[in-house]
Amino acid sequence: MHPRTELPAGTLVVGVLGAGQLARMMAEAASALGIQLRVFAQSTSDSAALVVADTTVGELTDLAAVFKFAQTVDVITLDHELVPAETLAHLTANGIIVFPTSAAMEFAADKAAMRARLSQISAPMPKWSLVSNSAAAAEFAASVSFPLIAKSPRGGYDGRGVWVIHDAHEFSDLTYPVLLEEKVQFQRELSALVVRSPHNQAVAYPIVETAQQDGICTQVLAPAPNLPTDRAAQAQQLALQIAAELDVIGVLAVELFDTGSGALLVNELAMRPHNSGHWTQDGAITSQFENHLRAVLDLPLGSPTMTAPAVVMGNILGGSHPDLHRGLLHCLARDPELKVHLYGKQVKPNRKVGHINLVGTDLADLRDRIAHATDFLAGKIDE
Amino acid sequence: MHPRTELPAGTLVVGVLGAGQLARMMAEAASALGIQLRVFAQSTSDSAALVVADTTVGELTDLAAVFKFAQTVDVITLDHELVPAETLAHLTANGIIVFPTSAAMEFAADKAAMRARLSQISAPMPKWSLVSNSAAAAEFAASVSFPLIAKSPRGGYDGRGVWVIHDAHEFSDLTYPVLLEEKVQFQRELSALVVRSPHNQAVAYPIVETAQQDGICTQVLAPAPNLPTDRAAQAQQLALQIAAELDVIGVLAVELFDTGSGALLVNELAMRPHNSGHWTQDGAITSQFENHLRAVLDLPLGSPTMTAPAVVMGNILGGSHPDLHRGLLHCLARDPELKVHLYGKQVKPNRKVGHINLVGTDLADLRDRIAHATDFLAGKIDE
Repeated sequence: MHPRTELPAGTLVVGVLGAGQLARMMAEAASALGIQLRVFAQSTSDSAALVVADTTVGELTDLAAVFKFAQTVDVITLDHELVPAETLAHLTANGIIVFPTSAAMEFAADKAAMRARLSQISAPMPKWSLVSNSAAAAEFAASVSFPLIAKSPRGGYDGRGVWVIHDAHEFSDLTYPVLLEEKVQFQRELSALVVRSPHNQAVAYPIVETAQQDGICTQVLAPAPNLPTDRAAQAQQLALQIAAELDVIGVLAVELFDTGSGALLVNELAMRPHNSGHWTQDGAITSQFENHLRAVLDLPLGSPTMTAPAVVMGNILGGSHPDLHRGLLHCLARDPELKVHLYGKQVKPNRKVGHINLVGTDLADLRDRIAHATDFLAGKIDE
Repeated sequence: MHPRTELPAGTLVVGVLGAGQLARMMAEAASALGIQLRVFAQSTSDSAALVVADTTVGELTDLAAVFKFAQTVDVITLDHELVPAETLAHLTANGIIVFPTSAAMEFAADKAAMRARLSQISAPMPKWSLVSNSAAAAEFAASVSFPLIAKSPRGGYDGRGVWVIHDAHEFSDLTYPVLLEEKVQFQRELSALVVRSPHNQAVAYPIVETAQQDGICTQVLAPAPNLPTDRAAQAQQLALQIAAELDVIGVLAVELFDTGSGALLVNELAMRPHNSGHWTQDGAITSQFENHLRAVLDLPLGSPTMTAPAVVMGNILGGSHPDLHRGLLHCLARDPELKVHLYGKQVKPNRKVGHINLVGTDLADLRDRIAHATDFLAGKIDE
């Protein structure tokens, strides 16, 4: 850990709890801005811990260790939603600035709290109910048709903690309380990403489409194709409103269902740089990582404008090859415009180990090239 | 230092001798590519040492320490030209791969050796002579008119080790041997930046103009305005030829005098990411830092194509304020499109502590905005 005395006068210092790929990509942006980034990692082999000089290894439940770390920085921010609420509360109670705040984070960490809060501001959402037992579940089911979605209010991530309920017999298998939601018939999923600072400055990135396969986002298309301008503007306004109402500082990603009939319904919230915003690293003037850092430090935000008419991001999922090297040689040689971002993670089947951006004008062409590269790296194709 | 066992299978590891801002910016590119970068620093407060996890502190003259460091990496590259030739030779003799090679580096470290080698390939240059004493200097002076340029063959940097000689009386003040060159009447200075890999793959970036004030580069304009296409292509070809002839691996920057009469004369060579290529971080598909890493690892090179019609880079020179923070608040708020790159260096008057890129279409507008920001940060203007 570099002491303040080794840093140039006036250097801003950001501490990140968690050291996954989001912290790693924040570190790349911080280095460029002359911001000193410190990470609190679980292990020296965590994605960000591999590259960040000022890494502290410990447990996020160790209040004393986290507090000691936090005392060395100007502001604390988060790599993921699973930082214990007690830890955030302890830091805040002891005068540490944490962005997003623990109050705001509660709406990202607890899906039922999020639904209740968004209901207060009349945000468009699927019908929902937080139910305590099978009887209450049956009562909710009477007002909507099966199938339903059941969600564990806390701790879910990337499809974990989410179940499809086909009939009332399954209610007895659930752990209560559980969040029930109507299963929306949507045409596609969109994401609205905004960044907000303590000064109340906010920027909205273009609305993107998050293309999914088997419940996992495989590609992000920026801007979302065939989205009418007024609906895109509405979605941006909605995300800005949610950020303001929930007092989110930093990145807020609002995942939306596009029902095709005009309605965009809020699915989930994330209060950190988000997979649906990785395209900004190469396709926007200011990346979500840079703007997140600027926001939590209350610096003026950077322009979210796209640098080209179309950008596609593709997630690299691990295949059966434990080593990406040969695949990368092929892909980089085949397409010199690929922007590869790897997370320093051991390859495991279906593990997200990186992503690729491609910036240009012809969306279909970009999608094909990204699909080729990510399929090749996953071992799905061999030429 | 993370042992190989903590890195994902197949991770490529690059070691950099020296830990200045070039190593720091290589680290940002390496992190994105999943390349593990290690730096050999003089001090824990060196620019790259502040941010890079795998930092070793030592002296570049300590052959055993450098060799031990080099044994942990796949390839060694350099942050600056001042790495002792003995150190490079020792590494190479002991089986370490070093790019650029010590043989190539000699032509960047020794200006007389460079002139002699470029003469063999008939590269266009100012008239020159390596002279051993005043008599030989006078003999050279008879063939060209005063003023002349005298250069210390080794160790010069950013104008240091370079003198203007106005008449023959000054020959007695020189330390011999010295490189004498005609003082070219040039209209402007250009830079041709190319990257070459062991596979003999090479890419050429657009030719840029390096605008100078008092012998220091203040702005870089990409592409060089009003440069006829055929002359730009000639300059790229010349740089590619020099890279091939000198067997340069990695970035080669060829600084050129534009005499205005059609001739582009080689001024200096640099075999590392170069100030004249910093614009590529935000204005080219692949930055010079990424391509340098790809080259030394013999990965396929990335596209050097510009992402917009015009890019301007401005160097941030330190002013009287030791702290850039207030200035940055102003500049970032005034122009949300600025791409700021700071090096983590203590501000001192006229010290290069960072740079700013601006990408767009109107060169004059970009130049004005960059000049405002760099002048403000240097304390030259206050609004």
